[in-house]
Amino acid sequence: MAGQENIINRLTLDRLMQYYHWITENLDPKTEATVSSSQLAKQLTLDDSQIRKDLAVIGVKGQRHVGFDIQEVIVSIRQLLGLSKSHPAVVLGAGRLGGAISSYNGFVSYGLNIVALFDNDPAKIGLMIGGHVVQPLDHLESVIKQSNVLLGILAVPDHAAQESADRVVAAGIRVIWNFSPAHLRLPEDIFVRHERLFVALAQLFYHLNRIDIPNG
Amino acid sequence: MAGQENIINRLTLDRLMQYYHWITENLDPKTEATVSSSQLAKQLTLDDSQIRKDLAVIGVKGQRHVGFDIQEVIVSIRQLLGLSKSHPAVVLGAGRLGGAISSYNGFVSYGLNIVALFDNDPAKIGLMIGGHVVQPLDHLESVIKQSNVLLGILAVPDHAAQESADRVVAAGIRVIWNFSPAHLRLPEDIFVRHERLFVALAQLFYHLNRIDIPNG
Repeated sequence: MAGQENIINRLTLDRLMQYYHWITENLDPKTEATVSSSQLAKQLTLDDSQIRKDLAVIGVKGQRHVGFDIQEVIVSIRQLLGLSKSHPAVVLGAGRLGGAISSYNGFVSYGLNIVALFDNDPAKIGLMIGGHVVQPLDHLESVIKQSNVLLGILAVPDHAAQESADRVVAAGIRVIWNFSPAHLRLPEDIFVRHERLFVALAQLFYHLNRIDIPNG
Repeated sequence: MAGQENIINRLTLDRLMQYYHWITENLDPKTEATVSSSQLAKQLTLDDSQIRKDLAVIGVKGQRHVGFDIQEVIVSIRQLLGLSKSHPAVVLGAGRLGGAISSYNGFVSYGLNIVALFDNDPAKIGLMIGGHVVQPLDHLESVIKQSNVLLGILAVPDHAAQESADRVVAAGIRVIWNFSPAHLRLPEDIFVRHERLFVALAQLFYHLNRIDIPNG
C-alpha cells in the first residue's frame, strides 16, 4: 500500500459516493453552479455538518451563503476514487447473487468492469449470465493475470468463502468484496469489504417491532 | 410508531447484529459463559470501546476482567429485534436480485419470512424462484392483507421504485428495504432502509487506487 497518509474511512467514502451519485443524477452543471450542504443533507437524510466535514476531508471547502462548487465536488470525488478509470474485477459464484452483481448496470456506470464470472458447478459452466459466459474455476488464474485484475467479488456459499478468498489472493487479487457472511482470514495487505446483507435485518426488525398495530 | 423513546441508530443496530451473528456462529454457550469486548473487536475489526458502548445502549454491562455474559447478550439482542418471531415480507421484482433475496437462507434463519414474490413481467409470472411462485402485481394487496405483511422489499428497476413504494405503502406496508438507488418520497411514518450497493465501490476503488503496482 502507498505511503503513510491517513486512510479515509468506510463511512466517509460511502457518503462521498452518495453525494456524487445524487449530484450527478439530479443537478445539471450547465444551469447550476453550486450545491449547499443543507440541500444535500435534506435529500440524503444526513446531517449538514457531516457533509461539510466529509468534503473538507477531500479538500473541498464551501463558501458561506453560496455552497459548494458542483464541478469541484465532482472532480475531487472522481479523482479520489478513480471513477474515470475502468476497474477490472472477477466474480466467483454464478448463483443468483453472483448473477445479479454481474449483470447490474448501476455498477458499470461507475467503472466496475467485470471481466469474468466463475463457478465450479458443471451445470452452470457455459451459461450466459449478464453478458458473461460462466467459466470453470480452472481459468481463474490466467484471467486474473491476463487482465491485471486486482479486485475479486465473492458471491459463493459461506462454506466456500475462505477457500475462494485464498485462491484469488494467491492469483494476485488485492481487494476483495465479500458478499458471504464468512469471516475471512487473509494477509494484512489485502483489503476486504464485507457486504453483510443480513445485518440490515436488525434495523428492519427493530422498526417493525416498534409499530403499533391497530386492534382488529 | 411507539412512544417517545430514543431510537437506536442504524450503525449500532448493524453492529449488534454482527455481534449476535458472530457469537451464535462461533461460541458454544455450553462450554463458554462470557465473551470479552476485545475478543469481539479483534474478530470483527471494530474498536472495543465501541462494542462496550453498543451493548450498554441495550442495557448489557460487562464485568471487568470477565467480559459479557453470552446468554445475556444473545437474549437482549433477540428481544430488541424480535429475532424469535417470524417477520412476513413481500419482494417486488423477480429479477436476479429479487430472486437472490427471495432464496437466500441466511435471511430465513433470522426470521425473515418471504411470503410472496411479485413481478409485472408476464414472462416471469408463474416461474418458481427460491421456493416462491412469481405472482402478478394484481395479487399484491390481497397477499399483504391476508398475511399481515408490514415489510416490503424493493428489488425493482430504478424507474419503477417510487411507484412500487407508493403501492406497497397504500396496501399497508410500514417498513421498506429498498435495493434500488432511487430516492423515495414517502410519508414520514414509513421507515425506509436504503441498501445502496453501489456506494461500496467508493471504498473498493479508493483502496485499488492506493495499491503500488510492481513494475513489469
